[in-house]
Amino acid sequence: MPLLPKKIFILLSAFITTALFFLPPSQISLRAESDHLEELERQFVSKLNPGNLESWMKVMTARPHHLGSPGAKDNSTRILELFQSWGYQAEIETFHVLFPTPISRKLELTRPIHFKAALEEMVVESDSAAEKIKAEGLPPYNAYSADGKVEGDLVYVNQGLPRDYEVLSSMGISVKGKIVIARYGGSWRGIKPKVAAEHGAIGCIIYNDPLEDGYAQGDPYPKGPFKHSSAVQRGSVVDLPRRPGDPLTPGYGSTKTAQLLSLEESDTIMKIPVLPISSSDALPFLENLGGRIAPSTWRGALPITYRLGGVGLASVKMRLKFSWDRVPNYNIIARMEGTEWPDEWVIRGNHHDAWVVGATDPMSGLVALLEEARVFGELYKQGWRPRRTLIFAAWDGEEPGLLGSTEWVEHHAATLREKAVAYINTDGSTRGFLRIRGSHSLQILAAGVAEDVNDPLTGESLFERNKSRSAIQSVGPERRKILEKKTMDIEALGSGSDYTAFLQHVGIPSLDVRFTGEAKGGEYHTMFDSFDHYSRHYDPGFKYGITLANVCGRLTLRLSEGHVLPFDFEAAATTFSDYAEQVIRLAEKAREDAEVFNQLVSGHHFQRAANPNETYIAPETKKIVPHFNFAPLRNSVARLKSAAKGYRERKARVKGALEKNHPNLEALNSTLFRAEQLLTNSRGLPRRPWFRHQIYAPGFYTGYGVKTLPGIREAIEENNWDEVAEQTLLTSAAIERFAAAVEKATSLR
Amino acid sequence: MPLLPKKIFILLSAFITTALFFLPPSQISLRAESDHLEELERQFVSKLNPGNLESWMKVMTARPHHLGSPGAKDNSTRILELFQSWGYQAEIETFHVLFPTPISRKLELTRPIHFKAALEEMVVESDSAAEKIKAEGLPPYNAYSADGKVEGDLVYVNQGLPRDYEVLSSMGISVKGKIVIARYGGSWRGIKPKVAAEHGAIGCIIYNDPLEDGYAQGDPYPKGPFKHSSAVQRGSVVDLPRRPGDPLTPGYGSTKTAQLLSLEESDTIMKIPVLPISSSDALPFLENLGGRIAPSTWRGALPITYRLGGVGLASVKMRLKFSWDRVPNYNIIARMEGTEWPDEWVIRGNHHDAWVVGATDPMSGLVALLEEARVFGELYKQGWRPRRTLIFAAWDGEEPGLLGSTEWVEHHAATLREKAVAYINTDGSTRGFLRIRGSHSLQILAAGVAEDVNDPLTGESLFERNKSRSAIQSVGPERRKILEKKTMDIEALGSGSDYTAFLQHVGIPSLDVRFTGEAKGGEYHTMFDSFDHYSRHYDPGFKYGITLANVCGRLTLRLSEGHVLPFDFEAAATTFSDYAEQVIRLAEKAREDAEVFNQLVSGHHFQRAANPNETYIAPETKKIVPHFNFAPLRNSVARLKSAAKGYRERKARVKGALEKNHPNLEALNSTLFRAEQLLTNSRGLPRRPWFRHQIYAPGFYTGYGVKTLPGIREAIEENNWDEVAEQTLLTSAAIERFAAAVEKATSLR
Repeated sequence: MPLLPKKIFILLSAFITTALFFLPPSQISLRAESDHLEELERQFVSKLNPGNLESWMKVMTARPHHLGSPGAKDNSTRILELFQSWGYQAEIETFHVLFPTPISRKLELTRPIHFKAALEEMVVESDSAAEKIKAEGLPPYNAYSADGKVEGDLVYVNQGLPRDYEVLSSMGISVKGKIVIARYGGSWRGIKPKVAAEHGAIGCIIYNDPLEDGYAQGDPYPKGPFKHSSAVQRGSVVDLPRRPGDPLTPGYGSTKTAQLLSLEESDTIMKIPVLPISSSDALPFLENLGGRIAPSTWRGALPITYRLGGVGLASVKMRLKFSWDRVPNYNIIARMEGTEWPDEWVIRGNHHDAWVVGATDPMSGLVALLEEARVFGELYKQGWRPRRTLIFAAWDGEEPGLLGSTEWVEHHAATLREKAVAYINTDGSTRGFLRIRGSHSLQILAAGVAEDVNDPLTGESLFERNKSRSAIQSVGPERRKILEKKTMDIEALGSGSDYTAFLQHVGIPSLDVRFTGEAKGGEYHTMFDSFDHYSRHYDPGFKYGITLANVCGRLTLRLSEGHVLPFDFEAAATTFSDYAEQVIRLAEKAREDAEVFNQLVSGHHFQRAANPNETYIAPETKKIVPHFNFAPLRNSVARLKSAAKGYRERKARVKGALEKNHPNLEALNSTLFRAEQLLTNSRGLPRRPWFRHQIYAPGFYTGYGVKTLPGIREAIEENNWDEVAEQTLLTSAAIERFAAAVEKATSLR
Repeated sequence: MPLLPKKIFILLSAFITTALFFLPPSQISLRAESDHLEELERQFVSKLNPGNLESWMKVMTARPHHLGSPGAKDNSTRILELFQSWGYQAEIETFHVLFPTPISRKLELTRPIHFKAALEEMVVESDSAAEKIKAEGLPPYNAYSADGKVEGDLVYVNQGLPRDYEVLSSMGISVKGKIVIARYGGSWRGIKPKVAAEHGAIGCIIYNDPLEDGYAQGDPYPKGPFKHSSAVQRGSVVDLPRRPGDPLTPGYGSTKTAQLLSLEESDTIMKIPVLPISSSDALPFLENLGGRIAPSTWRGALPITYRLGGVGLASVKMRLKFSWDRVPNYNIIARMEGTEWPDEWVIRGNHHDAWVVGATDPMSGLVALLEEARVFGELYKQGWRPRRTLIFAAWDGEEPGLLGSTEWVEHHAATLREKAVAYINTDGSTRGFLRIRGSHSLQILAAGVAEDVNDPLTGESLFERNKSRSAIQSVGPERRKILEKKTMDIEALGSGSDYTAFLQHVGIPSLDVRFTGEAKGGEYHTMFDSFDHYSRHYDPGFKYGITLANVCGRLTLRLSEGHVLPFDFEAAATTFSDYAEQVIRLAEKAREDAEVFNQLVSGHHFQRAANPNETYIAPETKKIVPHFNFAPLRNSVARLKSAAKGYRERKARVKGALEKNHPNLEALNSTLFRAEQLLTNSRGLPRRPWFRHQIYAPGFYTGYGVKTLPGIREAIEENNWDEVAEQTLLTSAAIERFAAAVEKATSLR
């Protein structure tokens, strides 16, 4: 009810509208958009209680709860009951998935000395879950490793990435028919055996070097948060960059009756046996390798000379056997129906399965999600109803390969395309700095929340802390640019958690939210990722946990309550344009580098510079890189920039008007939230059709790490010139479709 | 005798002269300049015998031969007799110098546990000098450490450089009243206690981390060349960047009757006690430090968590007592009189003293020098006479502080200014790539020899191998530039060997020559720098040793025999111009950095980004950097460029003419070789008047590492704005004088 006479009000609105129109774009609509929302967020925040996070984490980490375990079943029921008690329509949606677990694991050094690896983690008696871990925990292994009994010479391959094999090859060292030992780091773990197999290796050992997360970094657990010498990082080695989800049901939900591939038909099960070991198990292998001294950047923190091994120096026997069972995968899905637009869904998810007891991964994120859901329930009981439908999901089977979320998304893909406004994901979260990654059309939403929420320890806004850190970590002109930033940027998403199927397969606008950067440790995927570890070393008092709930709750509310959805396309336009210029420069740089490189080869410079006392195989010349037609890409980005500017201007112009009674609201909103789907392509990416997003994908040789404009970028990196041309057209077409949707939204607004 | 009729000959010469004039400058005069020289070099090279290097090294490393030892006296006599046997007028020129040696050394950890450091190196029984080392070797210590009995808390200061103390100070850690432990590396060792004392530390321990030259790099001695855990790097901590030489005779020779400062008056003796220890002695100290975890770049390769220590955590007792004796310093000076220009001296030197038996340092260089001298003696016996006087010097007392060479140069400074054409230095040399550093007016000479001598293992020219390596190690456009290089560049000289007094104090054009880059090890200044170590791991067969003699012999001959001295100024002009642009950019960058840095400070960004769980002291604002008048510097460089071009053109024009009967030959040559002296300034550098060269100096906080245009560069780095202006004028004036000399040489040519 206006306090001013109506005429003056209209004049004033007109003035404000005009004034807003002349404000720089970044000043607009970052704050909660209406009094309704502000009040709602105030109430939401006031009810958040960190004590809940602590008690839920404690109870849900009291026993191992990996996929298929009694503990996972317990937690599923517990989570279901919580949702139900808060007034949600909740159910457990069960899929049936392939989940191999170890029957036997053997690893021995047979030459030059005999050593049998222990392959067990020491139990820390002080840990509250110790007894249950001993009784029920999975031993260290890599899920979807091949069964196998192999024996061969051992070679140290550093992180086991393609560039490492180039170095080995220059030294005349081949891994064909051999077993490799790689250290964790540099990529997602599944890349290591995949690349090893590509080079002819017959087995792969992965270990954690204390350099990365052991004593080199700080005190090992329980004294400090770092990895002690018996700890082993478990984890999946399914071919995630090709496709997550059940290896036997590609692209469709693994319901009880789903048609299954045979194990042999699956294209994502690892081809060779792989085993993760501790640094104390790794030491005798590495110490006895013999052969050439490893390059300096390949060295870890063990007190030895790192060597490469070779023919007839150190030999290894490895024997792995797994059960190849199908187990139930329990997704808990809870729904609070929207009153105004029930068919527009805001989805919030986190997985509940762990490798062992999983306090950080996944409980730190899940307990925040539960607290958000609890407070919404409380508000509901006080009479509040969300405008859009809220869906909370607790996924099972994330650890083996994003199984629960992927099967659910595959199974409900058509409905999600129709109704899913956005997906907000969390997973392991610690403390420090807010990290939001995801769809750039949601950047302005994320940035607004980052301004409105403060760091729990310093009291500074999350945005300001991030900005200060970025400024301090950068150098030169970049530093000045960062200091001038008015809003927060978000990063692109690759893979590694449950947003993958939403974003990469279907094109649902997604965000992943976590706190990170001030709590390092070595517990990841070990039995030491316990409540005691988390609450002592990571987030005492659950201050960052509750801040995570604060951030994600506000994101959810702003998506649920805004009459017009808080999408904006300027950040997407600018960012895609940056990506386009990056790939264009990448091609140019590849061309220049190949030219000079080939000069070095033909001039015999490599041989001349090589140490004459050591074997050296000079590289061969590189393929000449042609000039590509990147005009379609630049044109599509130009169109998007102009469309995004048009939408922003239109939004500023109509901002003063009440949007509630907007005549095209539903058409406008569906255009907004479905725009991201136009960035996908039903053909998918080359050699991995499941991955459909043309802007964001996990790298084929990074695993989790994102490659933006992946079709073009990886074609350049892999020297597929025809594919560069083809993918440029496909990517440009996707951006054109996206721009057209923005233009349509502008006309509707 | 020309085979062509005289007229045709004259026409042809004119044609050749003209043709040469049009050749790009780099094509000119790189090869041996005359048939006489070519034939002489051919004979010289044919007589070189690597077996001599081996047998001399063996005999001269059979017992310890540090300054003042019976072994040094033995070797001096041996060297003297060799020179005399080859026909040289040779003598031992004795100075008397301060040389402290240990009376007692004690180091204990007193808290949290008790540990007494062994402070002894394990003797490798297989080493041929083992017995003598045990009986006669100096124990590990740092010469010119203060006497002292100190006790205090221990702090780890990384490499102990100014930037390390900035990091400690940001963590609220002070070393005032404490004892510091620093690892070797990052600078010359003497910087570490100097900077520690500047920050109020009362004692300093230095140790070798296995990361740098121990097991992290490869097998420890005797299996491999690397440092084993008991080995200790001895070495001087006299304030070398202030002044080398006897601390009690600044600027004049320490003859028997020289006036001496008292120990208290000397400004180069270290103010606090310093002791070097082995990594096995260091381990208990580092392991028990407690306190904050060290930053990741501060960590070494010991199997511990590197921490910083602090108040009341780890405490140390240190007790050092030295004899402060004056001992005889034996320089062996051998002379072969020049027939045509006896008062133009080409000086070739290498020290003979070692810390223990010193196979690499200094014998690897000294035996090459002896072989050069032997062959010249053989040629002499066959009737050859050098045109200029050759002087061979074997310096004593290099290790404690370049004593022998410095006292000799100080004592003979006036004569050297008059007669010294150039000084060619060697010292420890191993294998791999030719590294020549020195006066850029000799670059073209050095480059010519590098083209004419081949690598002994690959058969490629030394220049080509260097070029290939540089190209491969560089990236981007730099790589292309290197591939286009037609001649070799040389680097600038700082300090660290006997060229220092010649170049930095008097301005004698100097070169330092060594092979390096393919033989890493940890023997430096330990008892393991033995004949066995060198001949097994570094240069089996003395192939690179004899190549060093080949290179240095040719350099000597080209300086001795050319009618016109082979000086050229294009490289100096280009290089000085690069240095000028570097310091100008340094000032600009300092200005920009300070501006943004102060924005970060005033915006509280440092506090905001800091981990709230850890002590953090934000930095203070930096001094605003004004704009400086660098015009005089650019003008002087421009004049030098033009003068150098003029000299090169003149040289090309007159090349065809016989230079033997040049009317101004002596005036021309003395102008050429004395030009470098005009780059010095009798006032010297700020706060260290002994260092007079305005282009090259060791850095005040690097010790050995060069700072070019040191007056200007260090004034910018140390925020002395008035000094920037003053030093710019002094440096510019020096370059103007140098340019004027080049102009004069052009007019004389």
